[in-house]
Amino acid sequence: MPSYATNMRLKFSILALTLEAVTIVLYAFLVVYDTGDAHGHDGSHAESNTTHSSSPITLYPMFQDVHVMIFIGFGFLMTFLKRYGFSSVGINLLLAAFGLQWGLLLQNIWHMHDGKIRVSIEKMINADFSTATVLISFGAVLGKTSPVQLLIMTLLEITIFCINEHLVVEVLKVSDVGASMTIHAFGAYFGLAVARVLYRPGLRNGHENEGSVYHSDLFAMIGTVYLWMFWPSFNSAIAEPGDPQLRAVINTYFSLAACALAAYATSSLVEKKGKLDMVHIQNATLAGGVAVGTCADMDIQPFGAMVIGITAGVISTVGFKFLTPILASKLGIQDTCGVHNLHGMPGILGGLAGILLAALYIASIGFCYYQYGLIMKSPFWGQPPDQNCFDDSIFWEVPEEEEENEERLTHGDYSKNKTEA
Amino acid sequence: MPSYATNMRLKFSILALTLEAVTIVLYAFLVVYDTGDAHGHDGSHAESNTTHSSSPITLYPMFQDVHVMIFIGFGFLMTFLKRYGFSSVGINLLLAAFGLQWGLLLQNIWHMHDGKIRVSIEKMINADFSTATVLISFGAVLGKTSPVQLLIMTLLEITIFCINEHLVVEVLKVSDVGASMTIHAFGAYFGLAVARVLYRPGLRNGHENEGSVYHSDLFAMIGTVYLWMFWPSFNSAIAEPGDPQLRAVINTYFSLAACALAAYATSSLVEKKGKLDMVHIQNATLAGGVAVGTCADMDIQPFGAMVIGITAGVISTVGFKFLTPILASKLGIQDTCGVHNLHGMPGILGGLAGILLAALYIASIGFCYYQYGLIMKSPFWGQPPDQNCFDDSIFWEVPEEEEENEERLTHGDYSKNKTEA
Amino acid sequence: MPSYATNMRLKFSILALTLEAVTIVLYAFLVVYDTGDAHGHDGSHAESNTTHSSSPITLYPMFQDVHVMIFIGFGFLMTFLKRYGFSSVGINLLLAAFGLQWGLLLQNIWHMHDGKIRVSIEKMINADFSTATVLISFGAVLGKTSPVQLLIMTLLEITIFCINEHLVVEVLKVSDVGASMTIHAFGAYFGLAVARVLYRPGLRNGHENEGSVYHSDLFAMIGTVYLWMFWPSFNSAIAEPGDPQLRAVINTYFSLAACALAAYATSSLVEKKGKLDMVHIQNATLAGGVAVGTCADMDIQPFGAMVIGITAGVISTVGFKFLTPILASKLGIQDTCGVHNLHGMPGILGGLAGILLAALYIASIGFCYYQYGLIMKSPFWGQPPDQNCFDDSIFWEVPEEEEENEERLTHGDYSKNKTEA
Repeated sequence: MPSYATNMRLKFSILALTLEAVTIVLYAFLVVYDTGDAHGHDGSHAESNTTHSSSPITLYPMFQDVHVMIFIGFGFLMTFLKRYGFSSVGINLLLAAFGLQWGLLLQNIWHMHDGKIRVSIEKMINADFSTATVLISFGAVLGKTSPVQLLIMTLLEITIFCINEHLVVEVLKVSDVGASMTIHAFGAYFGLAVARVLYRPGLRNGHENEGSVYHSDLFAMIGTVYLWMFWPSFNSAIAEPGDPQLRAVINTYFSLAACALAAYATSSLVEKKGKLDMVHIQNATLAGGVAVGTCADMDIQPFGAMVIGITAGVISTVGFKFLTPILASKLGIQDTCGVHNLHGMPGILGGLAGILLAALYIASIGFCYYQYGLIMKSPFWGQPPDQNCFDDSIFWEVPEEEEENEERLTHGDYSKNKTEA
Repeated sequence: MPSYATNMRLKFSILALTLEAVTIVLYAFLVVYDTGDAHGHDGSHAESNTTHSSSPITLYPMFQDVHVMIFIGFGFLMTFLKRYGFSSVGINLLLAAFGLQWGLLLQNIWHMHDGKIRVSIEKMINADFSTATVLISFGAVLGKTSPVQLLIMTLLEITIFCINEHLVVEVLKVSDVGASMTIHAFGAYFGLAVARVLYRPGLRNGHENEGSVYHSDLFAMIGTVYLWMFWPSFNSAIAEPGDPQLRAVINTYFSLAACALAAYATSSLVEKKGKLDMVHIQNATLAGGVAVGTCADMDIQPFGAMVIGITAGVISTVGFKFLTPILASKLGIQDTCGVHNLHGMPGILGGLAGILLAALYIASIGFCYYQYGLIMKSPFWGQPPDQNCFDDSIFWEVPEEEEENEERLTHGDYSKNKTEA
Repeated sequence: MPSYATNMRLKFSILALTLEAVTIVLYAFLVVYDTGDAHGHDGSHAESNTTHSSSPITLYPMFQDVHVMIFIGFGFLMTFLKRYGFSSVGINLLLAAFGLQWGLLLQNIWHMHDGKIRVSIEKMINADFSTATVLISFGAVLGKTSPVQLLIMTLLEITIFCINEHLVVEVLKVSDVGASMTIHAFGAYFGLAVARVLYRPGLRNGHENEGSVYHSDLFAMIGTVYLWMFWPSFNSAIAEPGDPQLRAVINTYFSLAACALAAYATSSLVEKKGKLDMVHIQNATLAGGVAVGTCADMDIQPFGAMVIGITAGVISTVGFKFLTPILASKLGIQDTCGVHNLHGMPGILGGLAGILLAALYIASIGFCYYQYGLIMKSPFWGQPPDQNCFDDSIFWEVPEEEEENEERLTHGDYSKNKTEA
C-alpha cells in the first residue's frame, strides 16, 4: 500500500499563492484592457473587435451564461456523491478561478499586439472554455485526488489544451465551434488517462461513500438543468454573429430536447421494471449538447440536430449502464462521474465527420498524457488513502453535528445488539 | 380498488421514442431556420422579423430568463414534497423537453410560409410558454400520475392550448401579453379537471408522503425565487419592443413586490400565533406575476400594478388556507400544489376586464377537458396505487442508503419497545 | 432577562400592510414610467435617458444579474445555519421586496421632473443596490431578530442610506461606482452597530443552532457562487457605457479570481492540518468583489485588480479566523455571518484612496446608528428569546417530520441509557 501525505497545510497554501503570484507578474507585463485607449495602434485594436458591434459588452449576457455553466453547472453536477459536495462545488470554483487566469494568458500568447494581450469579453469566454477541459477531467478522478494534485493538473492540462487548440484551430484550420473534440473529448480522454494512472485496486469493489443520497441527487440536478438550459450559449457564444450564431443556438436547443427524450426512454429500457436512473438523467440528457458542438453553426437543419441528439442520448445512457463497469474492471479506469459517457463518446460522435483525424490525434497524444499522469502518482501530492476517498472531511472542515448524529445512530444499533444478546 | 400497472419498462420507452420519432419526421418536412438564407422569398422572411432589430438573437437573454423559469422555476417549485423531488424536477424536464418541440410545431402550423415553419428566438419563447400550461397542470396532479400518463397529457394539452390560443389571439384578437388567461387559468383549470377525473377516495385523509421536510422546502424556494425574479421577462418577452415592453417589465416588477408583502402579511394573519407558512411563501408571492399578465403592457402605472399585486397575494394565500381543503373534501379535486390558488384565481383576476368572455370560455371547454380526462383513467397507463403516491421509488431508482437509515432508526425504536416490554 | 413578545399575529401583518399601503399612495402621486409618452417635456425625458442607447431595456440583462445576486445570492448565502434556512431566504425576499419599493422612492425624491419620478431599468438597478445595504446588515443580526424588527430596520436603513448616498455622490461628488463604501462598508457597520445594541450575554458561549449541517453548507454555496459569478455585473451595471463599463467588468472578474486563490490558500494556512473551512470559502472568496468596487471602472489594469483581490481575500479570511471571536468577546458584537469580514474591512480597503474621508464619515454617523439601534431593543418588536435564536420554528411553520425524527433518535439514546443503567 502506498504512503499518503494528506496534510495540506503548507503544500497547498504555498502552491496556490505561488501560482497566483507568478500569474500576477505575467499579467503586469502582458495583459491590458481591450479598450479604445489601450496602448497600441488604432488598427490593431479595430482588428480585435472586428466581428462585433459597437458596444464592447455585446457578448456579456452570453459570457454570463457560460460562466454559470462553469461554476454552477459543472460544480453542482458533481455534488451527487453523498459526502463529497464541498469538494465538488468548492474545488470546482478553485480550479476554474485559477484556470481562467492561466487559460486567458496561454490562449492569447500566440497572437499578441505590441507585446500585449488585450482582454475582451470574447477572450473571457474562451478562458472559461479552457477551464471546462479541466473540470471534465476532474469528474473522472473525483474523490480520489487532493487539491494539490488538481491544481497541478489544471496548470498542465490548460497548457496542453492551449497548444492543442492552437494547432487544431489556427494551424490545421479545423472548425470546432462548439468544441466537441477540442474541449469535450480532449477533457474526457485526458481525465481517463489520469484515472488510469491513478488506478486503485482497493476501490475495485466500490466504496461506501461512492454513491448518492436523496438530497445530493437533487443538488446535482441544479447542475444538470443549468447545463441543459445554457448549452445553446456554450455552442454559440463565439460563433460568427448573425445566421451562424442563430443556427448554433437553434441546433443545440433541438439536439438537447431530443436527447432528453432519448435518455429517459433508454434509461427506463435498461433498468429493471422500467424505472429511471438519476445518474442517466443527470448526465445523458446533456450528451446532445456535446455531440452537436462541432457542427452547431452548420446548416444541418433542426431535424438533423435532433437525430444527433437522439443518438447521443442513447449512446451515453448505454455507456453508463454497460461500458463504465467494463472500463473499471477490465481496463482499470475508474471514471467517477462517467465523463467518458457524457463528454468522451458524444464528443467523438460530434467529431465523426473528421473521425480519422480524431483517431490519430487521440492515439498520438494519449500516450503523452499517460506519461504525464505518472508525475501525479507521487505520494508527496497528498492523494487520499482508499478509505478516505469520496469524503470531504479529509480536506474540509465538516460540521460535527453530522458525526454526532451518526454516533447516536450507531449507539442505537449498539444498544439493540446488546439487548438482543 | 382499481388495478395498477406501474411497470413502465416497455410502455414508457416505446411511447417516448415514438413521440420523438414522429416529431422528427414532421420537423424534417416542416421546420427550417429563420435565417436570411432560408428557402423562400425575401419578403416572407422580412415579415417574420419585422418587429425586431437587425441581430437575430436580440431576444436571446429574455428567452433564457423564460427558459430558467420553465426548467428551474417550475421544476424546483414542485420539489417541496419530501419524497417526490426526483419526479418533480426530472419529469418537469422530460415534459418540457417534449412539449417545446410539440408546441413549436402546433403553434406555427397556422401560419407557415411556403409550407415551412421558420424557427426564431421569438418562436422558441412561445414554445416555452406552451409548455408552461402543462407544467401548471402537472402541479395539480403531482404525485398521483405516471410518466406515461403525463406524456399523453402533454401531447393533448399542448394541442388544445394551441387551438385555443389561435382562437383567442388570432381570431378573437384578444390581447393577453402575459397570458393570465390563455396560459395560467387555462393550465390551472385543465389540471383541476384532470385531478377531478383522477379523484382518489383513498387519499381523502392525506398521505404520509404528502408533506415536506426541512430541506425539501429549501429546494422549493430555489424555484420560487427564480420565478419571482424572472417573471418580468415572462410578461414582457413577446411584448412590442420599446415602451410597451418597458411597461410590461415595470408593471410585473411592482406587482410582484407588492404581492410579496401581501402574501407574507396574510400568511401571518391566518396562521396560529402569526407564523409564516412556507406553502404560502413559495406560491402566493408569485400570484402578482400571474394576475398582472393580461394587462402587463398597458398604461396602468406602477401603483395600479401594485394594487393588482396586493389583491392577488391576499386571494392566493386565503385560497391555500381555506379553499384548497374545501375543493378536496367537497368537490373531489385534490390539487397537490394548489395551482388553483397560484394560477387559477390570479389568472382569472388578471382577465377580469374580460370576465364574461372568460366565464363562457371556461364553462364551455371545461366539459371537454373532463371528457378527455376520462381517457387518462385507464389502468393501463400505470397510475400508481394510493400507497405509492408521492414516492419517487415507484418510478425512480432511489439510493438505498436512505432506506437503510430508516431501518436503523426503526430498529432503535424497536429495541426501545422491546426493552420496555 | 428581558421579556419577549414573539407572537407576530397582528403586529407583523399590520406593519407590513401599512408600509405597503403608504408606499402605494406615494407611488400613485409620484411615480410614472420613463416612457416617451410620460407626462412632461421632451427635454427632461431625454435627459434621464441620455447615457443609454435607443432601447429602454438595454440594461435589462445587467439588472437581472443584480436581481439574482440580491434574491438568490444574499438569500442562499445565509442558509448556512442548520435551522434558519426558511428565514434566511424567506425574510431576505420580504425585506428586498419592500426595500426596492422604498429605495426607488427615496433615491429619486431629490431629482424629480415635473414632480414625478420616472422609473427606468437603471433606477430599478439602483433600487436593488439600496436593498443590498439592508441585506448586509441582516447578516450581522441573523437569527436574533424578528420580522417586525427587520422591516423597521429596512425602513430606517434605506432612508439613511439614501440621504447618505445623496450627500456622497451628489454633494461631495465622490465616485464610488461599485459602492465599496456607500453600500458595503455602510451596510456592514450599520449592521454591526445594531448587533452591538442587541448584544445578548446569553449567547456568549454559542448556541446549539449557531452552526451548519452538511446540506445547509451546500445551499449556502448556491448563494456564494451566484454572487461570485455576477459581481462583475454589480460593479459595472451603472458604470458609463463603453470603456469604463468594460473596465469595471474586467477588473471585478480578475479581482475575484485572484481573491478566490488567496481565500483558499489562507483558509488552508490558518486551519489545523491545512483543511479548508466552508465559512471562509463561502465568504472570503467574494471579498475581491467588494474591495475593487470603488475603483472598478478606473484604469488600474488587470494585475492591479488582482493585487486588490488577493489582499481582500487574505484580510477577509484572517478576519473570520481571528477577528470575529474578538469582536464578540471583547466588544460585544455578535456578527452571525461575519459581515465585517466580507463587507466591512474589504469595503474600507476599497475606499482606502479616500480613507480619511471614510474614517470621519464612519465615526460621525456610527454614533447615530447606535442611537437608532436602541429603538429596536423594545421587547414589543418580538425579538426571540436566547433559546429560540437561530430557529425557524419561532416564526415559521416547520414540518413536523423533522421533530419526530429527532424524537426517535432521542428515544434510541434514551433506551441505551436505560439499558446500560
